[in-house]
Amino acid sequence: MEMKTIKDIKVGDSASFTKTVTETDVYNYAGISGDFNPAHINESYAKETMFEERIAHGLLSVGFISAVLGTQLPGPGSIYMGKNLKFIKPVLFNDTITATVTVKEVIEDKKRIILDTVCTNQDGDLVIDGSATMFLPN
Amino acid sequence: MEMKTIKDIKVGDSASFTKTVTETDVYNYAGISGDFNPAHINESYAKETMFEERIAHGLLSVGFISAVLGTQLPGPGSIYMGKNLKFIKPVLFNDTITATVTVKEVIEDKKRIILDTVCTNQDGDLVIDGSATMFLPN
Amino acid sequence: MEMKTIKDIKVGDSASFTKTVTETDVYNYAGISGDFNPAHINESYAKETMFEERIAHGLLSVGFISAVLGTQLPGPGSIYMGKNLKFIKPVLFNDTITATVTVKEVIEDKKRIILDTVCTNQDGDLVIDGSATMFLPN
Amino acid sequence: MEMKTIKDIKVGDSASFTKTVTETDVYNYAGISGDFNPAHINESYAKETMFEERIAHGLLSVGFISAVLGTQLPGPGSIYMGKNLKFIKPVLFNDTITATVTVKEVIEDKKRIILDTVCTNQDGDLVIDGSATMFLPN
Repeated sequence: MEMKTIKDIKVGDSASFTKTVTETDVYNYAGISGDFNPAHINESYAKETMFEERIAHGLLSVGFISAVLGTQLPGPGSIYMGKNLKFIKPVLFNDTITATVTVKEVIEDKKRIILDTVCTNQDGDLVIDGSATMFLPN
Repeated sequence: MEMKTIKDIKVGDSASFTKTVTETDVYNYAGISGDFNPAHINESYAKETMFEERIAHGLLSVGFISAVLGTQLPGPGSIYMGKNLKFIKPVLFNDTITATVTVKEVIEDKKRIILDTVCTNQDGDLVIDGSATMFLPN
Repeated sequence: MEMKTIKDIKVGDSASFTKTVTETDVYNYAGISGDFNPAHINESYAKETMFEERIAHGLLSVGFISAVLGTQLPGPGSIYMGKNLKFIKPVLFNDTITATVTVKEVIEDKKRIILDTVCTNQDGDLVIDGSATMFLPN
Repeated sequence: MEMKTIKDIKVGDSASFTKTVTETDVYNYAGISGDFNPAHINESYAKETMFEERIAHGLLSVGFISAVLGTQLPGPGSIYMGKNLKFIKPVLFNDTITATVTVKEVIEDKKRIILDTVCTNQDGDLVIDGSATMFLPN
């Protein structure tokens, strides 16, 4: 994991990370965040919802976006300034989620970049759409 | 945790959740998200950064916002549509973070509400600023 | 989570918490408690028992009772004095357990309350029966 | 871990298990049980309580008693029928807790035994007092 400067980044650069989201992930994430929404941890309740089963926390998959931003593109040393997110579809237990970030704007004088940040599932469906602004101090 | 309808929500309604963020949280969260940015899990690297120590993942504290949205206000049954986030200050290990959500707009015909969502630390400093849009199907 | 005083509590007040108990919970709990009874973590052994499968630790569901006592009724600030428990039926993996506490006695001069504390499964079967004594210092 | 029968058990038989209770234990246990009582996970709140710091969940140490009952005395195959507990002193982070069980009654015709079950800390102070009833089917 090398430290990048703003000059190393070009519009269109892209990176991704994929993980199958399991019941273990959802339960451990609930335990860290305190988010015990019954949609995530109560199967009897979840059966009566429109999804008919427990679903993963949306933010759990957003974490995969941060994993790409923080370890690959732009990577270590960059600073997370802000984020917009739209939750399009639920993530179900055992969905395989790919977080992809793509540079859409390089603001060289401010040492900032703006990236499209999306999550898709194993069927290629968009589940999370959004963008992130990163600051590259070096 | 009772199911609320759009008529139960008023501008100014507020709820919060507080947790001291520990090394355990950060390490468990890294393991779930795959976000092994050295700023979070590499003390040697972190000493050389401007913060001079490991810092927590910003999204970890964002999870406390979701905990409030999903279990208190508006609570179970509401659906997360979108989110804007600004990361203002880092969260250090052992900071006590309070996530507070406050209703700022009720759009009754669309069954949507918009909430201010902030995280503050034990000194009252704003660490995360943002807003969330929730849909209340009932 | 507001601090209650003895005057805020009435006989019949009730609160509950529900969680589907998963293999993840059982394994994480075994790791914390050191309770590696083969009935919980050895499938080969468990097949030969009367339950014919691994079962959850009874105390894991008792924790849901404490969750209700400590965060809802009587909530933060109350002090756990004692507890009686009867384990009526085993909790199987993927059972959805509801812990319900109901105030049965308010001893105002001693600032104590006694609550019925039960756990039921998704079929409404009683799995844990018991009572708890809480002290409300405020 | 061998299966014992009621004839293998004598009044006075004793066994124990010791573990230092860490912040990690408390945080992971909160995540499993949903017990986010601020006394356990909110340092700002805890400083204002009579203990002046976060304390461990009482039930976490009760788990050490079950660990002894389920793996040593009477061990695998025995069935947990009931339990009485008194919480005498709080368990602080980094306390070293010893759970000790001692047989006080053998009811041979009912295949039941009653054990004293206590937890003490590193100073020898009694923190949890109680008894347990176990059924030995073999």
